[in-house]
Amino acid sequence: MTFPLLTEEFKDEFDLRVSKVRMAMERHEIDALLVASTVNLYYLTGGICRGYFYLPIDREPVFFMQPPATPAGANEVSIRKPEQISAILEERGYARPRRLGLEFDDLYYSEVERLKKVFGEVTCADGTKVMREARLTKTPLEIKKMREDGLKHCAVYSHVDRCYQGDMTDLELQIEIEHVLRKEGCLGYLRVAGSKMEINMGSLLAGPNADAPSPYDFSMGGAGVDPSLPVGASGMIMKPGMAVMVDMNGGFNGYQTDMTRCWTIGEINEKGRRAYECSREILRDLESFARPGVEIGEMYRRAVRIADEAGLSDYFMGHARKVAFIGHGVGIELNEAPVIMDRNKALLEENMTLAIEPKFVLPYIGALGVENTYVVRENGLENLTPFSEELTALMP
Amino acid sequence: MTFPLLTEEFKDEFDLRVSKVRMAMERHEIDALLVASTVNLYYLTGGICRGYFYLPIDREPVFFMQPPATPAGANEVSIRKPEQISAILEERGYARPRRLGLEFDDLYYSEVERLKKVFGEVTCADGTKVMREARLTKTPLEIKKMREDGLKHCAVYSHVDRCYQGDMTDLELQIEIEHVLRKEGCLGYLRVAGSKMEINMGSLLAGPNADAPSPYDFSMGGAGVDPSLPVGASGMIMKPGMAVMVDMNGGFNGYQTDMTRCWTIGEINEKGRRAYECSREILRDLESFARPGVEIGEMYRRAVRIADEAGLSDYFMGHARKVAFIGHGVGIELNEAPVIMDRNKALLEENMTLAIEPKFVLPYIGALGVENTYVVRENGLENLTPFSEELTALMP
Repeated sequence: MTFPLLTEEFKDEFDLRVSKVRMAMERHEIDALLVASTVNLYYLTGGICRGYFYLPIDREPVFFMQPPATPAGANEVSIRKPEQISAILEERGYARPRRLGLEFDDLYYSEVERLKKVFGEVTCADGTKVMREARLTKTPLEIKKMREDGLKHCAVYSHVDRCYQGDMTDLELQIEIEHVLRKEGCLGYLRVAGSKMEINMGSLLAGPNADAPSPYDFSMGGAGVDPSLPVGASGMIMKPGMAVMVDMNGGFNGYQTDMTRCWTIGEINEKGRRAYECSREILRDLESFARPGVEIGEMYRRAVRIADEAGLSDYFMGHARKVAFIGHGVGIELNEAPVIMDRNKALLEENMTLAIEPKFVLPYIGALGVENTYVVRENGLENLTPFSEELTALMP
Repeated sequence: MTFPLLTEEFKDEFDLRVSKVRMAMERHEIDALLVASTVNLYYLTGGICRGYFYLPIDREPVFFMQPPATPAGANEVSIRKPEQISAILEERGYARPRRLGLEFDDLYYSEVERLKKVFGEVTCADGTKVMREARLTKTPLEIKKMREDGLKHCAVYSHVDRCYQGDMTDLELQIEIEHVLRKEGCLGYLRVAGSKMEINMGSLLAGPNADAPSPYDFSMGGAGVDPSLPVGASGMIMKPGMAVMVDMNGGFNGYQTDMTRCWTIGEINEKGRRAYECSREILRDLESFARPGVEIGEMYRRAVRIADEAGLSDYFMGHARKVAFIGHGVGIELNEAPVIMDRNKALLEENMTLAIEPKFVLPYIGALGVENTYVVRENGLENLTPFSEELTALMP
């Protein structure tokens, strides 16, 4: 196990992340945070371990790690169990926290209950909110990693047409793309926030299966092939006239990009092509509209308006079942803040990373649309997934 | 979304599961359970949804489901949010629970806090324990599904030697096996209990990488290829004299089997062969020793004893880092109860399903051992993963 952010090389990056977390702690009036979730430990250390990262608002953080991780610096301490934390901090002259942040939305109930008792009687507040706010805008290193991830993601998509053979099922095509993803370096494990999200390496939807609802919170559904995982490809043979939506994940280096492209089997009808072009039109509109200071909900409303004006509102963001967002933050997890939805009154900030995915579901034809991952820059959006958006037919 | 267990066809199976849960509720003095986790909803309904399964000890259960799931029976109700549950139950004449079971170890802290308020002031207790106890022994349908899974798992392992080409890295071989797994019907998503477990489709360990520690709770480690996922294959070229341990998952139908087999690159030394044979010897011993009524900890101690007598205790269940168990329950999740460890004083019961994995890690050579998934029968263990245990060399 290595913790790159705790080495001298990444000291500036580490300090930046700590200061971002502390700013969020101040807003929430939390004077110490005890981080225990895998994703947030990864954010703060650059590595994965069993352990606890204790971050007071005004003193040096202390990283408590459990075996097999071994301490390397003065602020790294090996412990067997979290109950040791309080005494060690006391020895080091740390005051007891007044309001302790614990990750209410990242840890199981029993885990939080256990950590609540570490400092005896102490007021606890939600540390998940703090960490989400800190991670809302990305640091230079995070953006670098996402740019790298996006380029590898694009390289994989350039193989999609070679993965296709005639008379294939949606699942067979998905499996061939997964294979290329893995061979090109995708780690094969996708971190998703929320207890009701389950996915392996992304989703491929073709034809009528795109209109099958799924219980998960993804933008699109699909029936899946088994009641134990009702999402995505259904095992149905793809036929001429169908659209094939590929929304397979990046995930090459601890960060993710989210990208969707479509292909067709033979020719799809004019309405299908119009929906696809409308998705691109929405992206072009938002690319020039979105910049720091813009209300996030306004991005959603503009997208809905463009779909309306094209006469496609019945199909926008789903048909039999619709979702009420057109995009989301992305980074360590596939689904981070902010959600691009009507009632999000927050303003865009520089260095937010957004997956924007205006998509349509047309009965029988399938799902159509483009998704790119962007970073919000001073003058607009920078596309981290610069892959051709032409709608072409897959040739056996 | 379909919920097979709620159909007439599986009524007996459903009644059996409900009665198993109720027996566990009685032991824990819980008079109503509100189940919300994906795995436990799957256990009770055979499907996946957003929703809540309310199970009183002495009245009909009510299944509260959120869109897009739609009610099909008299005891199925559509709700928007869990706060509606209490009023609906009152309308139906249900008394308020006195001691409500909520899944403390399956739901996030914020989820449990929200559900705690559904019935106003009510005492809450741990529903995770109840569900784990109910799921500890498997029903006939569960065993049927696991047997089916095991056979498909074996079919995939019969392709391993054909996946190998000379001068391959461990990761390259793993990716080819993943590809076969998917093509043979593996769903590609592995449910694992615990917040500190992350894995895609299993693990392949070769040579010295087997001795690299990992922060996760799996029996074996491995460095992985990126600090964001420090487990399993390391991307190192496999060389003659190394052992290759394949512990890739089943997972074809909502249930899992866990199976490990080893191959060699060229010849490995005599000590390596001895360790491998010792693993098989331990399995043979436990296969005839283990039966209903046997103390689970005694299985662990017998295994340790056999490894000791073979002079291999330094390498048993890890070398640089050791784990203190030789197996675990398996079913919907890869790691279920019971854990086969020294201090487990519980007794084996008929229809428990156990993955038993006596393994050795030899420096430089790699990991050696066999793992099978068994069901405990009246007269001993039935092997659900009947695949050849011969140690052979992979040929390019």
